[in-house]
Amino acid sequence: MSFFGDLVSTVFERRYSRAVPSDAAGRTITELAQDLLGAKGEVSGSTLARLILDQYAAMEAQEKNAFFMFMLQELEIDPVDVVEKLKTYKEAPSKRSYREYAAASEPKRQELLRRLNQVPGATGLLVSMRKDLLRMMRDNREIEPLDVDFQHLFASWFNRGFLVLRPINWSSPAEILEKIIAYEAVHAIDSWDDLRRRLQPKDRRCFGFFHPAMPDEPLIFVEVALTKGIPNAIQSLLADMRDPIEADQADTAVFYSISNCQAGLAGISFGNSLIKQVAADLSRDLPSLKTFVTLSPIPGLNGWLDQSGLAVTQDTPEHALAAHYLLEAKLPNGLPVDPVARFHLGNGAAVHAVHAKADLSDNGLRQSGGVMVNYLYDLSQITTNHEQFVTEKTVAASAEVRTLSATVSSAN
Amino acid sequence: MSFFGDLVSTVFERRYSRAVPSDAAGRTITELAQDLLGAKGEVSGSTLARLILDQYAAMEAQEKNAFFMFMLQELEIDPVDVVEKLKTYKEAPSKRSYREYAAASEPKRQELLRRLNQVPGATGLLVSMRKDLLRMMRDNREIEPLDVDFQHLFASWFNRGFLVLRPINWSSPAEILEKIIAYEAVHAIDSWDDLRRRLQPKDRRCFGFFHPAMPDEPLIFVEVALTKGIPNAIQSLLADMRDPIEADQADTAVFYSISNCQAGLAGISFGNSLIKQVAADLSRDLPSLKTFVTLSPIPGLNGWLDQSGLAVTQDTPEHALAAHYLLEAKLPNGLPVDPVARFHLGNGAAVHAVHAKADLSDNGLRQSGGVMVNYLYDLSQITTNHEQFVTEKTVAASAEVRTLSATVSSAN
Amino acid sequence: MSFFGDLVSTVFERRYSRAVPSDAAGRTITELAQDLLGAKGEVSGSTLARLILDQYAAMEAQEKNAFFMFMLQELEIDPVDVVEKLKTYKEAPSKRSYREYAAASEPKRQELLRRLNQVPGATGLLVSMRKDLLRMMRDNREIEPLDVDFQHLFASWFNRGFLVLRPINWSSPAEILEKIIAYEAVHAIDSWDDLRRRLQPKDRRCFGFFHPAMPDEPLIFVEVALTKGIPNAIQSLLADMRDPIEADQADTAVFYSISNCQAGLAGISFGNSLIKQVAADLSRDLPSLKTFVTLSPIPGLNGWLDQSGLAVTQDTPEHALAAHYLLEAKLPNGLPVDPVARFHLGNGAAVHAVHAKADLSDNGLRQSGGVMVNYLYDLSQITTNHEQFVTEKTVAASAEVRTLSATVSSAN
Amino acid sequence: MSFFGDLVSTVFERRYSRAVPSDAAGRTITELAQDLLGAKGEVSGSTLARLILDQYAAMEAQEKNAFFMFMLQELEIDPVDVVEKLKTYKEAPSKRSYREYAAASEPKRQELLRRLNQVPGATGLLVSMRKDLLRMMRDNREIEPLDVDFQHLFASWFNRGFLVLRPINWSSPAEILEKIIAYEAVHAIDSWDDLRRRLQPKDRRCFGFFHPAMPDEPLIFVEVALTKGIPNAIQSLLADMRDPIEADQADTAVFYSISNCQAGLAGISFGNSLIKQVAADLSRDLPSLKTFVTLSPIPGLNGWLDQSGLAVTQDTPEHALAAHYLLEAKLPNGLPVDPVARFHLGNGAAVHAVHAKADLSDNGLRQSGGVMVNYLYDLSQITTNHEQFVTEKTVAASAEVRTLSATVSSAN
Repeated sequence: MSFFGDLVSTVFERRYSRAVPSDAAGRTITELAQDLLGAKGEVSGSTLARLILDQYAAMEAQEKNAFFMFMLQELEIDPVDVVEKLKTYKEAPSKRSYREYAAASEPKRQELLRRLNQVPGATGLLVSMRKDLLRMMRDNREIEPLDVDFQHLFASWFNRGFLVLRPINWSSPAEILEKIIAYEAVHAIDSWDDLRRRLQPKDRRCFGFFHPAMPDEPLIFVEVALTKGIPNAIQSLLADMRDPIEADQADTAVFYSISNCQAGLAGISFGNSLIKQVAADLSRDLPSLKTFVTLSPIPGLNGWLDQSGLAVTQDTPEHALAAHYLLEAKLPNGLPVDPVARFHLGNGAAVHAVHAKADLSDNGLRQSGGVMVNYLYDLSQITTNHEQFVTEKTVAASAEVRTLSATVSSAN
Repeated sequence: MSFFGDLVSTVFERRYSRAVPSDAAGRTITELAQDLLGAKGEVSGSTLARLILDQYAAMEAQEKNAFFMFMLQELEIDPVDVVEKLKTYKEAPSKRSYREYAAASEPKRQELLRRLNQVPGATGLLVSMRKDLLRMMRDNREIEPLDVDFQHLFASWFNRGFLVLRPINWSSPAEILEKIIAYEAVHAIDSWDDLRRRLQPKDRRCFGFFHPAMPDEPLIFVEVALTKGIPNAIQSLLADMRDPIEADQADTAVFYSISNCQAGLAGISFGNSLIKQVAADLSRDLPSLKTFVTLSPIPGLNGWLDQSGLAVTQDTPEHALAAHYLLEAKLPNGLPVDPVARFHLGNGAAVHAVHAKADLSDNGLRQSGGVMVNYLYDLSQITTNHEQFVTEKTVAASAEVRTLSATVSSAN
Repeated sequence: MSFFGDLVSTVFERRYSRAVPSDAAGRTITELAQDLLGAKGEVSGSTLARLILDQYAAMEAQEKNAFFMFMLQELEIDPVDVVEKLKTYKEAPSKRSYREYAAASEPKRQELLRRLNQVPGATGLLVSMRKDLLRMMRDNREIEPLDVDFQHLFASWFNRGFLVLRPINWSSPAEILEKIIAYEAVHAIDSWDDLRRRLQPKDRRCFGFFHPAMPDEPLIFVEVALTKGIPNAIQSLLADMRDPIEADQADTAVFYSISNCQAGLAGISFGNSLIKQVAADLSRDLPSLKTFVTLSPIPGLNGWLDQSGLAVTQDTPEHALAAHYLLEAKLPNGLPVDPVARFHLGNGAAVHAVHAKADLSDNGLRQSGGVMVNYLYDLSQITTNHEQFVTEKTVAASAEVRTLSATVSSAN
Repeated sequence: MSFFGDLVSTVFERRYSRAVPSDAAGRTITELAQDLLGAKGEVSGSTLARLILDQYAAMEAQEKNAFFMFMLQELEIDPVDVVEKLKTYKEAPSKRSYREYAAASEPKRQELLRRLNQVPGATGLLVSMRKDLLRMMRDNREIEPLDVDFQHLFASWFNRGFLVLRPINWSSPAEILEKIIAYEAVHAIDSWDDLRRRLQPKDRRCFGFFHPAMPDEPLIFVEVALTKGIPNAIQSLLADMRDPIEADQADTAVFYSISNCQAGLAGISFGNSLIKQVAADLSRDLPSLKTFVTLSPIPGLNGWLDQSGLAVTQDTPEHALAAHYLLEAKLPNGLPVDPVARFHLGNGAAVHAVHAKADLSDNGLRQSGGVMVNYLYDLSQITTNHEQFVTEKTVAASAEVRTLSATVSSAN
């Protein structure tokens, strides 16, 4: 056993001799992991997997870090073996030689994670494990490669084909609703009454993606308001005392909040599919809906204004600067600076309109002086927009926004 | 484009010019596959995936073979690249260098399959695709390595943690029940009335594993009879006119039929988990159950008798020969010749009893002269049995069966 | 205890001393019924109710008849008491005096039936009890008044507001589907394959009313074919080898079979609501549907022809006679002779077209020489038709059918 | 039309000419009601019923009162007709003569209510209508007889056999949970967090009865704590920071709160069934439960002490007085003064123990000086207790409580 294996064992032995009853045979988590990888037939895999997950759950940060190092170093590929098996395979391709290459080229930690996943309920625990990893990576860059393995597996497990789109409403279980309150990332939900105002009125909708192995955990959700016309401020949309309209009177669906729920699934993208799917479903159920649009924050505006030296003047009010920022402010790679803009433009939406005094919350004023933006999902233009954005980094925008942006260019 | 790419394109062009409307732009399946792998941003991935799956479904065998060859050869690893990326990674381990190695070491066809899977309903189609592959592999061993990729992905997707155990009974949807009729592999179900006799009586149970992405397709199912005492013949168990007993009067649960349903999931094992899970669930619901046992066929008995030269005599009746066969007939690797024995012994069961005249059907007489066997799942012994079978190839058996087997040894 | 109480007790004592273990205290069903009606507090009502239902279920016809006589005679109103309580109430109306009148005016057997119904599952048993009653009424007219009580209660319990409309399809539980096979009263379903042809194709629908207290028992169901144009024969509609059309390509919904399922609910009408509800639901889901029509048998045609002396001739082919029959053959009360015609015309439908050679089955030939009829449900005309039929007994019919009928009138 | 019909029409005409669009033909609610009762066939019953319910919902108190008077007076029995039909029936009993008597003896308002109920969703509205009636009866005793009709129908519709017992927990829909918060009548739930503390911990349960026609409305619910031993105070049971125990470690189920939810169902009893059913279900799921007990308020204690002149002294502390009150304080009819005592003793429970300082809330101190009582549901004694209570008004009690009560008797 290597240095790290020893370290981990030592840490665990110390800990478990005091606190956590290890398994009957007193094995450490790394020994259990080796067993699970099947060095020899002992007890059934699912029992071992459960023991490992239990031990992991009881660990402190230092121990978790040691376990990650164990996975990284002890369950690593053997480069000599990879090259050898590769050579054999390419010289004499066969099912057997390819299988051996495939086994050698992939680190055993991936197989470990797959085997841990055989326990019912394990998927959510593994998502939490990656959340731990992502946090610890900030202090220990050495363990970063391990995240490649997690991402690889999660991209496969959380494939769009395995996800289920479910409406979230006032008939949904409380245990899901409390997560909506907790996870709402754009416009905070401050109470169950506030939540009810977002879910219960007949002109409100909410949808989330769920994974069958984590049925109580939304992965991402979007909140939708059904309106007449495109709204220009979040305050009126979320007002306490509104008169809701009949759903079939609405001509516009406004995606006013999209929140990722699982830190452990960072970088595993499903938001794109979510909006398109929801737009398609709403469109089928409510044929009167003609316009699909967001009312989105511009989180990077004020930060960029500070850096760029542009300032609000009579000729360049903040919403004009916002138009300019969304159309012209680019990263070195040519993509927009604003992360929300990148998300919606990447989905094929267009910058449709900017509105001053649209979000007067502390957060809204701080990040963008209260300016918000509508991104338009024109189903007939999405593909073209998406292609041009991806290939040529063209930002689709309405004439109105272009004109507004131009006033800033000419003023500076 | 390589030779195979050309070939495939040619085949498809010929075909689709005549028959199948290809996509609007007239692209072939291989072009679509390359697009899907993201050479450039064009249309959304799910549209491409759907087009590919549609085209595949309309193909004839020759075209499918060509498509498999395309995946094998065009979406293959580049060995030079693998070695180079491996070197870089091991010299300077980082998230980036590891990610590049990981990407290089895995053939692009795996990513293609994952991306195809993002279409709702695709999982079942990919299982069918592997079924095609397995069949074609018989004639074209060259494509065998491709199966390693399918197996690798399916083992991850059909992980035990993603499967759902569901009871199958007379309240189940007809569309699932008709599959039970179709897939029953051990004791054929010849009509809906016959099916009802297996599902509806209060002393019968049936359970199957399902995958959430294929909710209408059982993956494997087991039929259970609740009895007083261990049965010694299948005829009485399946008799038309039985008086069922109350479930809570039973002391024994008999697993009398286990059937895999999906040819495309061959080698992806879940039978082991199924029996253990069902035994645990039954045991919780019906505390009076004390014995968990199979009533199993011995498919290899007569074939082995023919080869071994052993014959039925007064001193060595067929059920004694069966005991001998189950305990002594071994493959070169030391495991039992009989495939059903390997399955149950590998699960930790023991050979408990053999019965003459236990299956008088044509098939039962042909394969084993009507002899059947009970494998006993003694929950307190499963782990030990399993370990000893795996590590030392020890066959657990009752004293009675050992004695019976010994009469054959001494007689010869 | 009266004569009948004695008789019943005697019958039961004889029986139960031999066969059925009565309750611990050896009470007869009539004693139990008296107890349940609360003469004194003994055991809880639901235990008593269960005992009574169990004893009833084990009875033979003679005993059931005696039990019905007991209900009729022993649990009858007391006319003197009714008149007295009525007088008190009208002289001094109060909650108390009205309650006492109400209690006196209703026979105790109604309260008995309500109390029996407190056992989960009892509703279905009481429906069966009425089925027994209806059968026995043929031989014993004396018990007929009892049916008034059953009808009164069932009309309240099986109120439309308590019924649930559910689609019945190939995903429905087998235990419901086998009842569809059993209950289909118009065009017999001869196998599960035949059933599948009626439920699984994308241009077929089936809906039934269910009561929450009998969730596994359809009360009435209707089978629907989605077609292009109005069909003129049942053979093509039910053909084995059809090419189904896409549901959204259909312009017509054909109600080709409506079957009541529960003999014990005879005379409790819900068929009317069923067709209207199904038409409304289909119309919402499939906006392309423009025509709602039946393809119905004419069960009384040949019987009436025999009586009326009208005969098929060159000038009066059978379908013309059918038109004549449907429009002109009337009962003494002025309503159409044909029961199916009464049902659909009462719902507000119109006689739309008659078709020769439309049902070549034995039954179809026997009852109507193979002629069938379309009743048209024109949603804009239903109310007017219904009113005119109810108030003036006007039979709504198309010009075409009127003309056809007139050829017979003039020929005779 | 009678006086009341006129009055009602006038009131409505005035109102609807100003405010509510009556139906197209301008009919008043009483005309619609007469139509619905089928004077002649006009539009379908369900349309009429809907119109009536809509009009009713829009009415003010005065109008509702007039509508109730209309039902009482216009839809009343005709005493002459009752007597006549009764005579005919008794002279010549037949199905017909009995049917005519039955129709005459029941006021038409009952049929009106049944026909109103044919609209989906109507049941809940009719329950609300009775809630209005009960409130108005306080000021207008004249309408009290109408409540007899509502009670008669509701007793039939909300029969135990039609009710469904459902667990209520943290997975239940929010729209149901908010009603639990609203309806909790014993120990107020002050927030969603408080609710979660009652539902989510593994040693808590909650169950309610629901009616299928009002699926989102609990009728009555009971909250249960699973404990080790019988608790002697509500504070510890409802403490914010508790360490829940494992459900299978509990030996006692404590019914600590039972709340009726529907004012419109007052007097329609189902609480009795609820506790017995829940005890039976819990007992089956958690075999370790041995004791079923309440922790109940004593709402009448202090009021009775005031009247009786008994006072707390050193020798007669309040919990001793409570024992005395529960055992000895009787209504003129011989039943206990305390309403909660009547409920549980009527169910067959026994007074098991009284506890001082058991409810220190304002309400608890005010009504009983903080004393609470355990009623014991000993399943083997329930029947005997129930019988003796009903027939002889015997209060079952533990020796301990008897002794305690005796100290008061001897001290006074």
